[in-house]
Amino acid sequence: MAEPIENFYAVIPAGGIGSRLWPLSRADAPKFLHDLTGSGQTLLRDTWDRLEPLAGRDRIAVVTGRAHRAAVEKELPGIPDKNVILESEPRDSAAAIGLAAAILVRREPDVIIGSFAADHVIRGTRLFDHAVRQAVAVAAAGYICTIGIPPVEPSVGFGYIQKGDELDVEGAPEAAYVARFVEKPNLETAREYFADRSFLWNAGMFISRADVLLGEISENQPHLYAGLMDLADAWDDRDARGPAVDRIWPTITKIAIDYAVAEPAAEKGRLAVIPGHFEWDDVGDFASLAKLNSHGRKNDLAILGENARVLVDASSGIVVSQTHRVISVIGVKDIVIVDTEDALLVTTSEHAQRVKGVVDALKLTGQGDVL
Amino acid sequence: MAEPIENFYAVIPAGGIGSRLWPLSRADAPKFLHDLTGSGQTLLRDTWDRLEPLAGRDRIAVVTGRAHRAAVEKELPGIPDKNVILESEPRDSAAAIGLAAAILVRREPDVIIGSFAADHVIRGTRLFDHAVRQAVAVAAAGYICTIGIPPVEPSVGFGYIQKGDELDVEGAPEAAYVARFVEKPNLETAREYFADRSFLWNAGMFISRADVLLGEISENQPHLYAGLMDLADAWDDRDARGPAVDRIWPTITKIAIDYAVAEPAAEKGRLAVIPGHFEWDDVGDFASLAKLNSHGRKNDLAILGENARVLVDASSGIVVSQTHRVISVIGVKDIVIVDTEDALLVTTSEHAQRVKGVVDALKLTGQGDVL
Repeated sequence: MAEPIENFYAVIPAGGIGSRLWPLSRADAPKFLHDLTGSGQTLLRDTWDRLEPLAGRDRIAVVTGRAHRAAVEKELPGIPDKNVILESEPRDSAAAIGLAAAILVRREPDVIIGSFAADHVIRGTRLFDHAVRQAVAVAAAGYICTIGIPPVEPSVGFGYIQKGDELDVEGAPEAAYVARFVEKPNLETAREYFADRSFLWNAGMFISRADVLLGEISENQPHLYAGLMDLADAWDDRDARGPAVDRIWPTITKIAIDYAVAEPAAEKGRLAVIPGHFEWDDVGDFASLAKLNSHGRKNDLAILGENARVLVDASSGIVVSQTHRVISVIGVKDIVIVDTEDALLVTTSEHAQRVKGVVDALKLTGQGDVL
Repeated sequence: MAEPIENFYAVIPAGGIGSRLWPLSRADAPKFLHDLTGSGQTLLRDTWDRLEPLAGRDRIAVVTGRAHRAAVEKELPGIPDKNVILESEPRDSAAAIGLAAAILVRREPDVIIGSFAADHVIRGTRLFDHAVRQAVAVAAAGYICTIGIPPVEPSVGFGYIQKGDELDVEGAPEAAYVARFVEKPNLETAREYFADRSFLWNAGMFISRADVLLGEISENQPHLYAGLMDLADAWDDRDARGPAVDRIWPTITKIAIDYAVAEPAAEKGRLAVIPGHFEWDDVGDFASLAKLNSHGRKNDLAILGENARVLVDASSGIVVSQTHRVISVIGVKDIVIVDTEDALLVTTSEHAQRVKGVVDALKLTGQGDVL
């Protein structure tokens, strides 16, 4: 097995509930704490296992909410205490990744960080390694590097990254400049992008020297930068951290890293991309979950859940079972059934995006007990 | 309010689990112990309330399984002990109704009995009374009388009764001879019957002098007759009943009253019919239950269950909720969702008849815990 990459630190932002996966994902059981592939372990643990050979077990930091500390430490028993970075409340991805960068750069000025969401599904470890190692080489040369996924269909569920000119960096034969970032397109545009092979899916992976990333934040979001640096100054001091967090964190700008870093960096020719040839999915909704678990068999009913007792008659779609109940499914196509102790969802793949509306309705009607 | 009918005794056979209504109907919670209309009480209690003005509260007998004795007495707190007729195991409808007839005729030689299933839904009490009173008049004249329902659609889910010549009985202006009984037809035949106004649905209601009914059983099923009379001889003797039941009941012929009584009586010109102009349904499956609760609104989702917490978005069909769980239904048409503590069913109206297959599969696979 290859050695861990020199100077490399992996950062796993583990936030976000995954509302479109309700009632599976909850405030107290967010998406990253579920096994969504039948692998037998959580997405967070899968992410850790994928990164450990690249960074080493003592060089993976997790940024998560205070409420999830115990669950994260249970999932990752080997994680050093200093690598659990707790947010008192969510402030979006630039804050989460920026805080990790600021803390780590104080500890190691030359550190290269790579941030990888805790709740994505990736298959193909060798291809993942190959992409990350190239991205780190690009980062070492001073660029911010992202990993983009060659589309396998004209998806409207992801943002796109357009490749520009080739970038000549030793150890990164597939590197290219990023020409532009594009938000989730409509179907017509998605089809154009799919036909034009220069577009990749934005998988939200960023690899960069920590100081370069912070420099970019400093240029684009100086207030955010100042807050993050003040927090980092206090972080490794037991007595100072608490008061600093209480004082600064609530003032931190809420902004996605795409806007705070990636788009402006792309405009300035500082953003590079490596294509990731592994299978990737952000499992954004139950349609995606159904597809992910169908193993290519369109007429089958995928079943997720350790203790699932499902009787199927002429049905397709997905059943997610979190209870011990017998579930009988007869003559329904592309169905989505999610069975939990206190809530049941029945919909179809076609309407999977509307699940978020239910979550909003439950909030509005004071039924937050099941969220 | 009219007086109860002289010499009349109502008999309610309360047997049958209703397998096509699983997982709502169970061995320990059969169909007749459910509220299937949102009336706030069970079908058994509805049946009782419908018959009380016709027979009087002390003149309604219930024939049920030993396992349901407590539930029946809880539902019908006013029922005299002597009117709870317990079967040690189910032996089909001729045995159930025949036993009641044999017991009652020993007590009152001139008794006229009317048997009405415990688990049918009827709306229109005045029309029901009108039909029963006519049927009793026909029965007093020595006929076995049934009540048939004028079809409102070409149903393939019911048997049919063809009316013959008019029958001239005082107090029964709508009486007619029964020309023949027909089993559940195919759709083509059902359409013919529906167009030909002489066909009525067989609703399984029989009104007859008890001695006339027993005479018919005697002619057609002499072994069954002998067993029933032996049982009746011992029934009202505390010491004799138990041993007689243990000895005789297991030998009783299992046969439906349609075959043991109605069809042969029709052939011999001894069977009459009164049309029942009330709304009637045997609630044979979830499609029927959905229709019954849709109140004519085809695009609505009917919801059954006292504590139901259902969020509906662009869906139709029925949700039966027996739990306190939140049920969210998005973008599904003609869906059937039955949510119970230990089992969940998801199907469509179109496939509702296949529910029985699930029950069979559960038996075969040793999962009888949820039946």
